[in-house]
Amino acid sequence: MNAIDQKGFDRSCWSLVESRKVFDAGNRLRVLRQTVCLPDNRIVDDYYRIDLPSFATIYALTEDGNVLLLRQYKHGVGEVCLTLPGGQIEPGEDPEFSARRELLEETGYGGGRWLQGPSLVLHGNQRIARAHIYVAQHVIKLGEAGSGDLEETQLVLKPRQDLRRAMLQGELPITTHVATIGIAETLLEAISRG
Amino acid sequence: MNAIDQKGFDRSCWSLVESRKVFDAGNRLRVLRQTVCLPDNRIVDDYYRIDLPSFATIYALTEDGNVLLLRQYKHGVGEVCLTLPGGQIEPGEDPEFSARRELLEETGYGGGRWLQGPSLVLHGNQRIARAHIYVAQHVIKLGEAGSGDLEETQLVLKPRQDLRRAMLQGELPITTHVATIGIAETLLEAISRG
Repeated sequence: MNAIDQKGFDRSCWSLVESRKVFDAGNRLRVLRQTVCLPDNRIVDDYYRIDLPSFATIYALTEDGNVLLLRQYKHGVGEVCLTLPGGQIEPGEDPEFSARRELLEETGYGGGRWLQGPSLVLHGNQRIARAHIYVAQHVIKLGEAGSGDLEETQLVLKPRQDLRRAMLQGELPITTHVATIGIAETLLEAISRG
Repeated sequence: MNAIDQKGFDRSCWSLVESRKVFDAGNRLRVLRQTVCLPDNRIVDDYYRIDLPSFATIYALTEDGNVLLLRQYKHGVGEVCLTLPGGQIEPGEDPEFSARRELLEETGYGGGRWLQGPSLVLHGNQRIARAHIYVAQHVIKLGEAGSGDLEETQLVLKPRQDLRRAMLQGELPITTHVATIGIAETLLEAISRG
């Protein structure tokens, strides 16, 4: 993109005219109705933004090449499925601290070498939440799992090379987890190439 | 997982006791407050489900190995970024038909050989929407783009091998698009291995 294009695209941002809360369940869920002004000065007065808590997702690899997964019922999916460990970032909490806490609570594993991936949003229009992506190599078992989550979970150690097949077969049915696997594989390949 | 575990996990599904609409913006956004019964008979009376329209996302590859991307402002991200083509599936519409229509409208490209990936949900708890993932090889330019979307978009053809670096650098900041790239690369590698 040349300088003129870049300038054109800077002008393509929308400006926020007004934002009204139209549904509120505290920190857990908030819906805002926004009035936005487009670059051509058109006004859109019913653009919705949805705020759920941001969260961390962790691709954690053991010394012997297994990835830590959880088999659990997820109500958003409506069935038992595989997920990556992770969870909500409490207000004011550092995302990596949250990620380490969630991994320990959900799996009993910790330690190792941690890498941070890009943080992503869940929806290009309504935003929904920010997902903070971590890759942890050489994690070790430090204790017993016990997350206090509503779901009953089973820890599953799956060889790294089996993850992509599981993903294609729909066994990991949540976008953030599939995105995290792609980022983790890319980061790990970059490291192994040196 | 053995048969007893499998049985245990079948029992781990939650049952829906009641579902009340608490916010409604028609087909565009609906918030439901659900009462659910957990496997240990605990009742949770404030589990939220959010329904946004389901959509298709397309990883489209030209004959000369470029992936079709759009550079545009996305309000959920708050800045100009790269996205994959895609869009909302109209009620009753076949997801692949939607995907082909969106690709043509947004990029002017079509045809080629289409593969379907797994469909994914955006959030393990609140669901949000279902993303239908497509990989289109050998697409060709059929006409001019003109989607009628609110965003001004610029078509960007990026060599396939540059996509992972762009992803790591946060240039594609939406979970579904990163997930789609991971699925597409896995499908294409499986094909090239035969």
